[in-house]
Amino acid sequence: MDVLAPPIFLLTDFGERDHYAGHMKAVIAAIAPLAPVIDLSHGIEPYAVDEAAWMLEITLPVLPERAVVIAVVDPGVGTSRRALVVCREGRHFVGPDNGVLTPILRGTRADDEGECDVREITAPQFRRATACNTFHGRDIFAPAGAYLATGLDHQRLGPPVSDPVLLPPCRGEPNGFGRLLGRVIHIDRYGNLITTIRASQLFPRFAIDAGGREIDVHVRTFAEAPPGALFCHADSSGFVAIAVNQGSAAALLGARRGDPVVVHAR
Amino acid sequence: MDVLAPPIFLLTDFGERDHYAGHMKAVIAAIAPLAPVIDLSHGIEPYAVDEAAWMLEITLPVLPERAVVIAVVDPGVGTSRRALVVCREGRHFVGPDNGVLTPILRGTRADDEGECDVREITAPQFRRATACNTFHGRDIFAPAGAYLATGLDHQRLGPPVSDPVLLPPCRGEPNGFGRLLGRVIHIDRYGNLITTIRASQLFPRFAIDAGGREIDVHVRTFAEAPPGALFCHADSSGFVAIAVNQGSAAALLGARRGDPVVVHAR
Amino acid sequence: MDVLAPPIFLLTDFGERDHYAGHMKAVIAAIAPLAPVIDLSHGIEPYAVDEAAWMLEITLPVLPERAVVIAVVDPGVGTSRRALVVCREGRHFVGPDNGVLTPILRGTRADDEGECDVREITAPQFRRATACNTFHGRDIFAPAGAYLATGLDHQRLGPPVSDPVLLPPCRGEPNGFGRLLGRVIHIDRYGNLITTIRASQLFPRFAIDAGGREIDVHVRTFAEAPPGALFCHADSSGFVAIAVNQGSAAALLGARRGDPVVVHAR
Repeated sequence: MDVLAPPIFLLTDFGERDHYAGHMKAVIAAIAPLAPVIDLSHGIEPYAVDEAAWMLEITLPVLPERAVVIAVVDPGVGTSRRALVVCREGRHFVGPDNGVLTPILRGTRADDEGECDVREITAPQFRRATACNTFHGRDIFAPAGAYLATGLDHQRLGPPVSDPVLLPPCRGEPNGFGRLLGRVIHIDRYGNLITTIRASQLFPRFAIDAGGREIDVHVRTFAEAPPGALFCHADSSGFVAIAVNQGSAAALLGARRGDPVVVHAR
Repeated sequence: MDVLAPPIFLLTDFGERDHYAGHMKAVIAAIAPLAPVIDLSHGIEPYAVDEAAWMLEITLPVLPERAVVIAVVDPGVGTSRRALVVCREGRHFVGPDNGVLTPILRGTRADDEGECDVREITAPQFRRATACNTFHGRDIFAPAGAYLATGLDHQRLGPPVSDPVLLPPCRGEPNGFGRLLGRVIHIDRYGNLITTIRASQLFPRFAIDAGGREIDVHVRTFAEAPPGALFCHADSSGFVAIAVNQGSAAALLGARRGDPVVVHAR
Repeated sequence: MDVLAPPIFLLTDFGERDHYAGHMKAVIAAIAPLAPVIDLSHGIEPYAVDEAAWMLEITLPVLPERAVVIAVVDPGVGTSRRALVVCREGRHFVGPDNGVLTPILRGTRADDEGECDVREITAPQFRRATACNTFHGRDIFAPAGAYLATGLDHQRLGPPVSDPVLLPPCRGEPNGFGRLLGRVIHIDRYGNLITTIRASQLFPRFAIDAGGREIDVHVRTFAEAPPGALFCHADSSGFVAIAVNQGSAAALLGARRGDPVVVHAR
């Protein structure tokens, strides 16, 4: 099993068309040739830090032991925003200090402090010598992740950080009048709308308002709904999703990422 | 050569934008870290089981020995449809029982029965403990494929199946009046229309009716046709394709997947 | 480190949707199962040989030692155009003789002749037995690259070539009246316009004409520009790019690949 290094997962808004992900992989291959590189997704909406944080959160249950995750959605690249590495339960996470690592960091400033270690990446010997101002994915984050996969102690990357940027948790917010307020955090290829509301938050009897429609059909899986009908379900990661059997909820509702979604009891 | 496990090929309609393929790879990396994972394609049209079966068929001639293929186009996920594993000539194929594995299964119910072994995947120890109803790619098919790549005997996955779902074979159908009836099974990035008609079925002299046009130019390769002219040729997998040199036949004909195509003698 | 073979990078205009890249990887996996395969990009505009040559050039600084690059943008596939392999400084490059390998070949016909060795790929034992006329990526280039990764001496692939096709170098052309003429060579996912003009060619004080606008804001990185404002900067590979902070320069200017760009002194 130890023939190879731990796998490195990439999560970015770089898309598939350009050379950006390929150049990160080239840098990794030079430093950590035995580390398998796995594309988690490069399809995050450009600059959507919250969407990347959500995707990182839902990935944690399937992440192998010792995995390294490099998450780069980085509208502040080249400014004074810090570069972070986080070590948690034997896994390492690398990315800009803009909230994208929130699901790993949550809890670190309260009672369970100490369960993860956060560092700023500053050591010059673990980055590309010619780091530029617009592509830290290639010049800082990929080298850091690659060195971690070769076994580098993350503490050598830089000094401790006690105040990483955190996003609000990804969940429905009770409004005090029996409603849960959320939003569309991701629209997938099928046009399914994945919301910030957790299935565990739902009322025993409920309906969802989205896109000017009230959705009161709840099913266990797609094929249980009549073709073309809107329904909601607990998606494969435990979030409430709005879907159409063999159709696109996004097209039917004219929905976009960020649109509001409200759950009310019935 | 045996440092690594056999390669695992993924064929899905998950697209590239979401986390679905990435989560399958994460599950595989945890179970079979030494198995290279190869994306055959995630670009099958959503729910297009016939297109995935065609792509699986044209992949067989290039598939390495001992390869594992995980094919997930699965509109019936979470219903009573079975999950299958097929062993044929040392290779393993995993997917839902909806016809997507047809090219592997053809012949198993007739005279050459026995050349491949079909099983239903039921063994709970080889799936994720928390299998959900909407993502068997992650929870059932990826673990099964990963265990197969580590050397698991496929018979341990579940009991024999004698009646797998089969699609009609992918070929032109003679209509009894000297014509071959087919359809567009795939439109590629260049706008080439790949049809269900096999080059081996063509008449010595023929023309093709598609999109309201009669196409009677046959060439060996793209650059033999005048730029902008419609032509047909035997594509790289032996199927009849309609194309335009450095242009898009799909755009020129306004064609869509599933459109009818007719070959007639001249 | 030598458990695995050198990595093989793929650079094509095949897109992500089809089976073309997957079939190249299947062929490679059968010949060189220990060679990691890395997608540099499959998003080159169809038939855009100049764009692929540019991407190959900007990849050279991050390419690992001993890497193999297979570059396939090949509108002349199946004609008399030659298939080439180039060995340069321990790395190997494979592709059609249409200029796509220009960044590797530049200089080979002048004073530094001999620093790279160019061969035509003709040896039948290193291609697929059933090579077709329309998919040399699968039948000729992938096998050649795979055998090179296993250690094959490139000279065994075929005879020397002294006159490979070369594109003009990718740079701004002085027009003799104090201007640099260039064009948009690539539009990335964010809508950034990457030009053929090198940052090293810029005048001390300059502005850029593109899409009917004069752009005279120069910044170091995106976040230094006001949101929504057009600016130019030296991109992460040393070429001049036109961008909008958290917006799309391509959409704002209605720009397309190939559009002219002019730099003038101020």
